[in-house]
Amino acid sequence: MTELAQLNVLSEHACFGGVQRFYQHASSAIGLPMRFSVYLPPGAEGKRLPVLFYLAGLTCTEETFMIKAGAQRAASELGIILVAPDTSPRGAGVPGETDSWDFGAGAGFYLDATAEPWSRHYRMESYILELRELVLATLPADPQRVGIFGHSMGGHGALTLALRHPELFRSVSAFAPIAAPTRCPWGRKAFGGYLGADQSAWRAHDATELIKDAGRAVFPDGILVDQGLADKFLAEQLYPEALEEACRAAGQPLELRRHAGYDHGYYFISSFVEDHLRFHSLNLG
Amino acid sequence: MTELAQLNVLSEHACFGGVQRFYQHASSAIGLPMRFSVYLPPGAEGKRLPVLFYLAGLTCTEETFMIKAGAQRAASELGIILVAPDTSPRGAGVPGETDSWDFGAGAGFYLDATAEPWSRHYRMESYILELRELVLATLPADPQRVGIFGHSMGGHGALTLALRHPELFRSVSAFAPIAAPTRCPWGRKAFGGYLGADQSAWRAHDATELIKDAGRAVFPDGILVDQGLADKFLAEQLYPEALEEACRAAGQPLELRRHAGYDHGYYFISSFVEDHLRFHSLNLG
Repeated sequence: MTELAQLNVLSEHACFGGVQRFYQHASSAIGLPMRFSVYLPPGAEGKRLPVLFYLAGLTCTEETFMIKAGAQRAASELGIILVAPDTSPRGAGVPGETDSWDFGAGAGFYLDATAEPWSRHYRMESYILELRELVLATLPADPQRVGIFGHSMGGHGALTLALRHPELFRSVSAFAPIAAPTRCPWGRKAFGGYLGADQSAWRAHDATELIKDAGRAVFPDGILVDQGLADKFLAEQLYPEALEEACRAAGQPLELRRHAGYDHGYYFISSFVEDHLRFHSLNLG
Repeated sequence: MTELAQLNVLSEHACFGGVQRFYQHASSAIGLPMRFSVYLPPGAEGKRLPVLFYLAGLTCTEETFMIKAGAQRAASELGIILVAPDTSPRGAGVPGETDSWDFGAGAGFYLDATAEPWSRHYRMESYILELRELVLATLPADPQRVGIFGHSMGGHGALTLALRHPELFRSVSAFAPIAAPTRCPWGRKAFGGYLGADQSAWRAHDATELIKDAGRAVFPDGILVDQGLADKFLAEQLYPEALEEACRAAGQPLELRRHAGYDHGYYFISSFVEDHLRFHSLNLG
């Protein structure tokens, strides 16, 4: 109940018969105030609805998905709660945290940093689990029907958090995820900074390595991944083919859809977001 | 063909099977480079499609509607070209043009300024007509099926331009338009600045006054207006009831839909934008 008392509604907006809200709360995992957004579909009163967490990419905030993806229409129709956190702590005061667009503020990579000076506040894995509990305690959400998806860095976050906590997230999908971060510049920079130079600690936050280590279908209903073929980050940063090969070897069903002409942005995401909501709605029952 | 040569594609993005483009061109009406955006639905080759101009509100740009309204899904399905211009000249060099958020840059009010120093570049009515010609000359658009809609200042723009040029825009709708600008602070500030102190020149750019002056149904198929009742600008700035009364007196069919709980932003617009596209699609045949 202390958490309830700390939840502040920053704004709310009617949207597709439901309500779009922005919240701030004191996060114990992060040790700072954090913001997140919620879309609550109509007809939620007295029910327990499925809830779908969306993790955004580099430089984004809790607003990006809600204002750009156009997901509320399908969420309203399907009766799904959407939740989008911010992408990092804000104002942690770590020297240099706003110097890079791909590390530090706006680039938390959805893991708990173990290396100084990041380890005090940059604890985004613990934060997402805290936020999951907070949402289940304060919104009409069904704890048995929680899914997760995301884009780019947030696709990495959705895949790794689902694979690390399949009892907490029962359905997972991604748009253009950083599918093998230990192999790509974004991931190596982030993991080196947040986890330190010992690369043996990195693989536990790499979706492709987690699939390999599981060696089985952690999500028997499958994983959905959409990837644009005109995505300028595809060759150097994303490695969907590594995820595909690991899933094949492990027997993990994967629907990897390659879309000619689509790039890395929200015009791509908005084109396919309804498919993701329907995928999760089906999986979550 | 000189216009064609001046059209530069700034970026393009696959979206719902079609393409979202951003252009820059040298505008003769404005005397400066101008930007606009286009959504071209799939299957346009060899056809002449209906085209719908969207005029955005105060502080917005040619990007706002395309990235926030989620209109491409319905435009893709219905086969409608969407075009969104910027909301004012940029870099005109008029002293003070960026001092206010509701006058000058980002606030062109879709009219041709007659008062110095604005009259040289702030010629947004002529610009929209120029852009209409440019679009018809360069995109697979049907000159007989051109509609216009907009939001707030852009709702004012859509209504007034359609009423002043019904031969050019055959269908019109608006979200939360500034429906009687000669009565409200935003309109009186803008008209005083752009048109001068003589208020007799103002009524030709006020939708409510234009309906009164027409005294007949300029758009026999009707005008569609959506208005949120939780819109913080409703009481002081928008005056939909004045438009409603003028339409009633003139015999102009108007569907004014009042939506409890909805505010002035894009969560409101996105909730009803499909209705507007279907309205125009039906009217334009």
